[in-house]
Amino acid sequence: MSKPPARERLAEAAFALFDERGYEQTTVDDITERAGLGRTTFFRHYRSKEDVIFPDHDRLLEQVAERLRTSSHATALAAVSDAVRLVLLHYIAEGDLARRRYALTSRVPALRDREIASVARYQRLFREFIASWMAGAAEPDPLRAELMAAAVAAAHNHVLRRWLRGESPEPAREVDEALGLVIRLFTAQADGNGTTIVAFRTGQDIDALIPALRQLAGEPPA
Amino acid sequence: MSKPPARERLAEAAFALFDERGYEQTTVDDITERAGLGRTTFFRHYRSKEDVIFPDHDRLLEQVAERLRTSSHATALAAVSDAVRLVLLHYIAEGDLARRRYALTSRVPALRDREIASVARYQRLFREFIASWMAGAAEPDPLRAELMAAAVAAAHNHVLRRWLRGESPEPAREVDEALGLVIRLFTAQADGNGTTIVAFRTGQDIDALIPALRQLAGEPPA
Repeated sequence: MSKPPARERLAEAAFALFDERGYEQTTVDDITERAGLGRTTFFRHYRSKEDVIFPDHDRLLEQVAERLRTSSHATALAAVSDAVRLVLLHYIAEGDLARRRYALTSRVPALRDREIASVARYQRLFREFIASWMAGAAEPDPLRAELMAAAVAAAHNHVLRRWLRGESPEPAREVDEALGLVIRLFTAQADGNGTTIVAFRTGQDIDALIPALRQLAGEPPA
Repeated sequence: MSKPPARERLAEAAFALFDERGYEQTTVDDITERAGLGRTTFFRHYRSKEDVIFPDHDRLLEQVAERLRTSSHATALAAVSDAVRLVLLHYIAEGDLARRRYALTSRVPALRDREIASVARYQRLFREFIASWMAGAAEPDPLRAELMAAAVAAAHNHVLRRWLRGESPEPAREVDEALGLVIRLFTAQADGNGTTIVAFRTGQDIDALIPALRQLAGEPPA
């Protein structure tokens, strides 16, 4: 069995030391000593002690942006719902590392703030994507874009948090369900008027009325 | 005219220096010198240079929590929508100071991250409030609580950002409209099935049917 690459060895050493001594009490020198590597190697992979903890959000954000650019989904909300899965799958692929980071960021406020700020960048990317998609529409609606982006991010965060806590055995399926709920939330609301109840009396057979009802509801003919 | 209190004088001096020299290049000593006050006075009011920039989120968060605790609104979503107005009104009361902070946090990533993390605390408070309200319901739905909290925070942030940019002349009215949209979004979707159309044939008078229709729609009797 070959040794894991330097990047992983440093992360492994850092997390072990953070658990043993606490985050604040651990230095970069402690980490390199534990990993059996030099400071130069450390700074080739990470800018700081804090950097060791976080996944490569810059690269992941770029992948999500690329996914949006090349999306063939019919709506902005569907495209964003598809793209956010990349973020969830990234954490799942990290496995135990992601869970140790979660435990650590829950304990150290400065790290939790940085994690929150990282997640906010995805939400911003989604908001700008949806808003620019809508810019071509008859009535661009920046508030709606903001609400959609927030809902997609919240659905993702909900499932991610459950998975990190060991409460979600099937996060990929669960996030699809959660995103499905988000899409229904905004689709049902397309006219902004809420639930519509139509009551009428007629001598016509109900089957004959279905096409008219579909038209009323703004659906395509069957 | 009497001098403004020390706290405001320090903030005023700090913002003036951040504008002139840049945030990183300004020290606490620069700030106290400009304000004509001592270091002891500075540290009586603020823990650090960074603290001068931000409003008192701890106190504001406590006010919002208190508002939720004493709320008499009929739904969790209405209670949270009411409470988030406190945050918006706080920024509006700050006036020019809030706008200068916005300009500064837009330029300095570390400050922007801290501002984002502060805002995330309100969203978390809302999520926990809605989830605990729902805990008594027949079917608690933590995902729905998370989506509601995210939508309320997003509606607030949308209007706040517009006001900070000078794009919203009536932010208090605008936030009410935005929160109204959020409430409609979730109300229309109460059954998770979107728009409901009920078609039926009957010999009964329509007025006699209204109570039954209300019951079907899950509304209280008129």
